[in-house]
Amino acid sequence: MEKVKPRTLSGYMELLPEKQVYFEKMAEKLRETYALYGFTPLDTPLIEASEVLLAKGGGETEKQIYRFTKGDADLSLRFDLTVPLAKYVALNYGQLTFPFRRFQIGKVYRGERAQRGRFREFYQADIDVIGDGTLDIINEAEIPGIIYRTFNELGLRNFVIRINNRKILNGFFEMLGLGDRAGEVMRTIDKLEKIGPDKVLAILTDDVGLTAEQAGDVLLLITCEERGIAPLDALAAYDGRNETFDTGVEELSTVVRYLTAFGVPDTHFKIDLTIARGLDYYTGTVYETTMTDHPEIGSICSGGRYDDLAGYYTDKKLPGVGISIGLTRLFFVLEDQGYLNTELTPSPADVLVLPMTDDLSHAISFATELRAAGVRTQIYSEKKKFKAKMTYADRLHIPYVVFIGEDELAAGKVAVKDMVTGEQISVSPGMAAAAIKAAVEKTERTAPIKEPEKN
Amino acid sequence: MEKVKPRTLSGYMELLPEKQVYFEKMAEKLRETYALYGFTPLDTPLIEASEVLLAKGGGETEKQIYRFTKGDADLSLRFDLTVPLAKYVALNYGQLTFPFRRFQIGKVYRGERAQRGRFREFYQADIDVIGDGTLDIINEAEIPGIIYRTFNELGLRNFVIRINNRKILNGFFEMLGLGDRAGEVMRTIDKLEKIGPDKVLAILTDDVGLTAEQAGDVLLLITCEERGIAPLDALAAYDGRNETFDTGVEELSTVVRYLTAFGVPDTHFKIDLTIARGLDYYTGTVYETTMTDHPEIGSICSGGRYDDLAGYYTDKKLPGVGISIGLTRLFFVLEDQGYLNTELTPSPADVLVLPMTDDLSHAISFATELRAAGVRTQIYSEKKKFKAKMTYADRLHIPYVVFIGEDELAAGKVAVKDMVTGEQISVSPGMAAAAIKAAVEKTERTAPIKEPEKN
Repeated sequence: MEKVKPRTLSGYMELLPEKQVYFEKMAEKLRETYALYGFTPLDTPLIEASEVLLAKGGGETEKQIYRFTKGDADLSLRFDLTVPLAKYVALNYGQLTFPFRRFQIGKVYRGERAQRGRFREFYQADIDVIGDGTLDIINEAEIPGIIYRTFNELGLRNFVIRINNRKILNGFFEMLGLGDRAGEVMRTIDKLEKIGPDKVLAILTDDVGLTAEQAGDVLLLITCEERGIAPLDALAAYDGRNETFDTGVEELSTVVRYLTAFGVPDTHFKIDLTIARGLDYYTGTVYETTMTDHPEIGSICSGGRYDDLAGYYTDKKLPGVGISIGLTRLFFVLEDQGYLNTELTPSPADVLVLPMTDDLSHAISFATELRAAGVRTQIYSEKKKFKAKMTYADRLHIPYVVFIGEDELAAGKVAVKDMVTGEQISVSPGMAAAAIKAAVEKTERTAPIKEPEKN
Repeated sequence: MEKVKPRTLSGYMELLPEKQVYFEKMAEKLRETYALYGFTPLDTPLIEASEVLLAKGGGETEKQIYRFTKGDADLSLRFDLTVPLAKYVALNYGQLTFPFRRFQIGKVYRGERAQRGRFREFYQADIDVIGDGTLDIINEAEIPGIIYRTFNELGLRNFVIRINNRKILNGFFEMLGLGDRAGEVMRTIDKLEKIGPDKVLAILTDDVGLTAEQAGDVLLLITCEERGIAPLDALAAYDGRNETFDTGVEELSTVVRYLTAFGVPDTHFKIDLTIARGLDYYTGTVYETTMTDHPEIGSICSGGRYDDLAGYYTDKKLPGVGISIGLTRLFFVLEDQGYLNTELTPSPADVLVLPMTDDLSHAISFATELRAAGVRTQIYSEKKKFKAKMTYADRLHIPYVVFIGEDELAAGKVAVKDMVTGEQISVSPGMAAAAIKAAVEKTERTAPIKEPEKN
């Protein structure tokens, strides 16, 4: 028979079993954490009618879309989870209760140029709160609390949540008579960290056309901390001069005021007036999250407040706030940086039962008992030498092996070998099940991520 | 702004939030149960190179494939989880440990004709055990134990696992000199339940070309139970006449012998000599699972033993055994038949915290405390009338509402209202958290499925 060479497409992450265990644990932690904040799970199709998915139209994204026909239908794979959410809320508006809080963890598709760490199929893990007409600012204050808990549950410690408010920037630019160039100015100051203040100044005056004074005012505000001035104090100096600006400062103050109550320690958040987020639809609070030890990776969790989720589907005004984690890229980065927690045992089972008698009934019954107790159990039934069986347990990192031979059967016991210490004890089946269960529960709490020790 | 009418493609299941909760709980139960049996999770891409995915080629399936090009690449959406598994095992052979036990729950795509209860995008939930060269019969005996526990965990009670062995049928047909027509004969007897013995006899003689005696022998064996003869006894009468047949009987006996040890009660399995399974690649034990009260639905969990998983990718002999649950269709059927357990509360949160003071810090801190204790908590912060807030809790079936007003603050307490009984108590925040947590843990164990009471 002629063979086809098996391969996986480039840009598609397909993990070996041990790595998949880490990925699954990360996804599980996200599901659990999002659920703790009262978000309900949604699952929308990966395929939508192109007309619906591309209703908003245009832009960089459209070139990357996987679009095709099947019969008469013009179809596209989703490229994010936000457009399907907008469709869902517009379609089911009458049957939903608002504010509508949903999370979705699912694959999305973008035909990006293939390069290391770039994926064409990748998971996004999104939460959004959608209001009907209005949405209170407290929802924006809650988001950093969710981000903080999420990364903590994953096991990450050294990260900071950066917060800004688009109204502050928009209002400030209006104040300086730059309302019509707000977008360009924002895109420029967004580069501050990368290119430094001198280059930002040069671009603002030479390319965007600001006067030296306007450019100086912009830079003075956003770099206030370098001169020892807290951002809220620097902002206070402009109070009462522009309504949008004042609203933005008021919102930012509210968000910051409640962070402690939402469980976010001072060490893990920061007002950052340079954050603008590229997307045009953000209208209030915006968030970025960066790893303190790896700022070069960029934001690992971003989002913000928007005023109009589904304007291209419905006349209803649907403001919202949401964040998104690019889970596939995050996993790639964490693995790449050596952040997978080696204390987590990525084994498919907690116990391997090795029957040593011709009649397997007792061994099988004991395995059934273990499973009923919630212990993940394999029975090894292949006809191999003893050494091969132990190698199997070793290679899969299975922490316990149970032998049931004639001696054990006669004594009503089972032999339990701890594969890490090498210790072996002979106990009753009930005791063995309880002891293994207790040991396993401890390791179940192991976080999938752990930062490497610093030297 | 001109609007695009939001819609979801027909043949694509998209659930409202309450229904999605049931679906998620079912998927969670499957993940948990499969993991208990030592299966490791896998996640392969939804898109594969067409050349790889269609290596086996031909057949009904190919017409249904979603196939398209992106740039130079000829791509296809997976139509099952077995072909991607074959690719994965062939590709990663050197890095896997055998027997390789994996589960995968994922969406697959088939361009079926749209009709009620037929889906073009649907979940399959598969487990497979893959051997390297050989695979012991005990793996085939374990599968009914997994099927039994899986449906039990879902909450289903009235089902039966039907078991047969292809070697018995193949050997028997050889015995009768029908080896070359085995496929046709199998497809015919597979219809026994639907069309009855007379029509089966007629097709076997008139269309397939069997003599009346051959057809009679076939029917006599497969309908033995109607004459009060147990299948294993009926099979014993043909012992020693055909090697394949004898092996099949030996395997079936082994599978049946260990069912009790694997936890399958007599009431829930049945040898059924009419089961053949359409797919050509099954070579040993085959399984079907039918709902006792709804036999018309057909098999809700099927599979079997095969000898050659990945022959079109590799020379390695990779025998295996596996089963598949069509989760989307199963969910559709169960909902349609009124099997969703109304005792499960499909609420996105266990508690709704209603702040009644201007400063929300205390309410938020209490919500943070609840979440830390593992209680799913929402804070309602919209500026609405009290009645609207209670309606919100009601519509989402949130079981507890917590009020924190000035009186409670002064007394260091919170007011907890049980939304089902209407009872309201004033207790310390710590007590409230513990009480709600305990109540919630009880409901967490509720199965998603419950058979309706019979009248």
